[in-house]
Amino acid sequence: MARKFNFSAGPAMLPTAVIERAQAEMLDWNGSGMSTMEMSHRGKEYMSIAAKAEADLRDVMGIPDNYKVLFLQGGASSQFAMIPLNLMGDKTSADYINTGMWSKKAIAEAKRYITVNIAADTSDNGFTSVPTQAELKLDPNAAYVHYTPNETIGGVEFDYIPETNGVPLIADMSSTILSRPIDVSRFGMIYAGAQKNIGPAGLTIVIIRDDLLGKATDICPTMFNYATHADNDSMYNTPATYSWYMAGLVFEWLKGLGGLEGMAAINKRKAEKLYAVIDGSDFYANPVAINARSWMNVPFTLADAELDAAFLKGAAERGLVTLKGHRSVGGMRASIYNAMPEAGVDALVAYMQEFEAANA
Amino acid sequence: MARKFNFSAGPAMLPTAVIERAQAEMLDWNGSGMSTMEMSHRGKEYMSIAAKAEADLRDVMGIPDNYKVLFLQGGASSQFAMIPLNLMGDKTSADYINTGMWSKKAIAEAKRYITVNIAADTSDNGFTSVPTQAELKLDPNAAYVHYTPNETIGGVEFDYIPETNGVPLIADMSSTILSRPIDVSRFGMIYAGAQKNIGPAGLTIVIIRDDLLGKATDICPTMFNYATHADNDSMYNTPATYSWYMAGLVFEWLKGLGGLEGMAAINKRKAEKLYAVIDGSDFYANPVAINARSWMNVPFTLADAELDAAFLKGAAERGLVTLKGHRSVGGMRASIYNAMPEAGVDALVAYMQEFEAANA
Repeated sequence: MARKFNFSAGPAMLPTAVIERAQAEMLDWNGSGMSTMEMSHRGKEYMSIAAKAEADLRDVMGIPDNYKVLFLQGGASSQFAMIPLNLMGDKTSADYINTGMWSKKAIAEAKRYITVNIAADTSDNGFTSVPTQAELKLDPNAAYVHYTPNETIGGVEFDYIPETNGVPLIADMSSTILSRPIDVSRFGMIYAGAQKNIGPAGLTIVIIRDDLLGKATDICPTMFNYATHADNDSMYNTPATYSWYMAGLVFEWLKGLGGLEGMAAINKRKAEKLYAVIDGSDFYANPVAINARSWMNVPFTLADAELDAAFLKGAAERGLVTLKGHRSVGGMRASIYNAMPEAGVDALVAYMQEFEAANA
Repeated sequence: MARKFNFSAGPAMLPTAVIERAQAEMLDWNGSGMSTMEMSHRGKEYMSIAAKAEADLRDVMGIPDNYKVLFLQGGASSQFAMIPLNLMGDKTSADYINTGMWSKKAIAEAKRYITVNIAADTSDNGFTSVPTQAELKLDPNAAYVHYTPNETIGGVEFDYIPETNGVPLIADMSSTILSRPIDVSRFGMIYAGAQKNIGPAGLTIVIIRDDLLGKATDICPTMFNYATHADNDSMYNTPATYSWYMAGLVFEWLKGLGGLEGMAAINKRKAEKLYAVIDGSDFYANPVAINARSWMNVPFTLADAELDAAFLKGAAERGLVTLKGHRSVGGMRASIYNAMPEAGVDALVAYMQEFEAANA
């Protein structure tokens, strides 16, 4: 058995050390005589697992005490409705920054519940940049400002946190959370599907400032109301217990690597290696503005798209898999989340150079 | 390491053979070089796992072709809102049968969206019976009839399927699905949280008749619309991939036991053994009408509640755990889902007899 280097955009690689530990604990967690997925979520053992995971995430991210951390289900796609349903309050509009496919999905769902003001839109350049702070047309009366700090498909990442002058800033961090330190206090709410940098799919983390809770509209389903979950420590109903446990193992692993500072240094190096081989060649190309390039998702095209199939085949033969780009962008996409070892990036870089030499 | 006999109401035991297989496949599924939880849900390998799980469930339950099977998130609690939001159509009311705690929760959420007619209510006798067909006050103009075939807390199970004369019958089967054969064609929709008889928490199965799709109200969030998921084979967004895979292993295991006929024979025997020791004693009691006793959840009280703690302590010493009853009922509750081996029930029965002899 050889573990592959899996460049999937999500669900994605998990650290091999984490998978090995989950395997070892599978039949019998800590002498309990059962798997964590078999435990009552109300029992002492599972409660300790859940509490430790939250404490470790708070520690790793430096989450202030006036923020609740929720372990929910339904993915970022559910958040797209939950955000307006919970946060509109007595306001009539919200600001959305449109930088790609995931921004657009959030906007489409929000429009069903609230007037959406597009504060900036980079579709003119094919979503290859991020707007500057000066370009943001922010409404001081907006209920909130929503943006997507990292667009998984376009490979575009904000290099700054927008200043919203007191209007709550809401961020879909699904594909960037835990990749580097961030100042949580700048945000009203952060949310992320787990299946990229946190753990298995089916878990969604929401980090929300206390004062934003308790304002849901009348039509908001009980299970879509953040207060429901905040008031019950995410155990109003049975949570995704196993995914929560796995996330806890990932948070522990991150702490062992030196937390987000340590992780950021590795991620920066990995991304720089990959962009260097792309930029150093006329054979590979990435269209994204230098300042807006994602550390996590690196799309690139080959000079001749007819070579794509051969590139993917050769990569797979070397254990480098799930490199095909999203159909809306074409070419390749290497997602290099936290769990992708630097050795995986090195192997990809070596293969890209080899393939170019043989085919350019 | 000794596996415990875990009588949790959910999350609950999974078959040891299933857990062992998941453990063996954890680092490398079928030579893929990755765990199933690391696979892209759009990839060929994961798609084959998902499709096989659905096919096996259809086979095991005998689900007709005009029903869609959805693999969702959010638990039965999310369904409580999704049902009226999707199924009210141009009707103004729905019928609900109230037989316990979970019925009540479904009713409370439905009332936020539709007029609820209580077709029957057994609260007068403390939820220890099921209404007869003749006692059901059904409205022919109701959008649907909702009931809970098995109440997990009260340990009350319907011994018949209500006849609704063409009005769609909706059943929360969370704690009874897959425990015995059922005629799916009698239902408009069946739903079940996975964490009792299907797999890990965080997965919800919905089996819905085609003609009930596509009628969601305007306010229904996209992710709460059954049609969203039916139109995309439950992959509109990233599903709970690992839980879906685990459910597939459970479905395979069920087929190996002879499907639901084989499972029912075992479950009937397990339940009869436990009720026999309760009924054959003045020390233990179960208040539920004989015809309405659950095969899956067996609550019982001791003659003297002051012995509860000693009973639980002795049970735990014998590897019989999570037997404490729900706080609303008191005493004990033995949940004996499919994965509880008959040997577990035998061990519990022997311990109950021993404890009675020592303390009666």
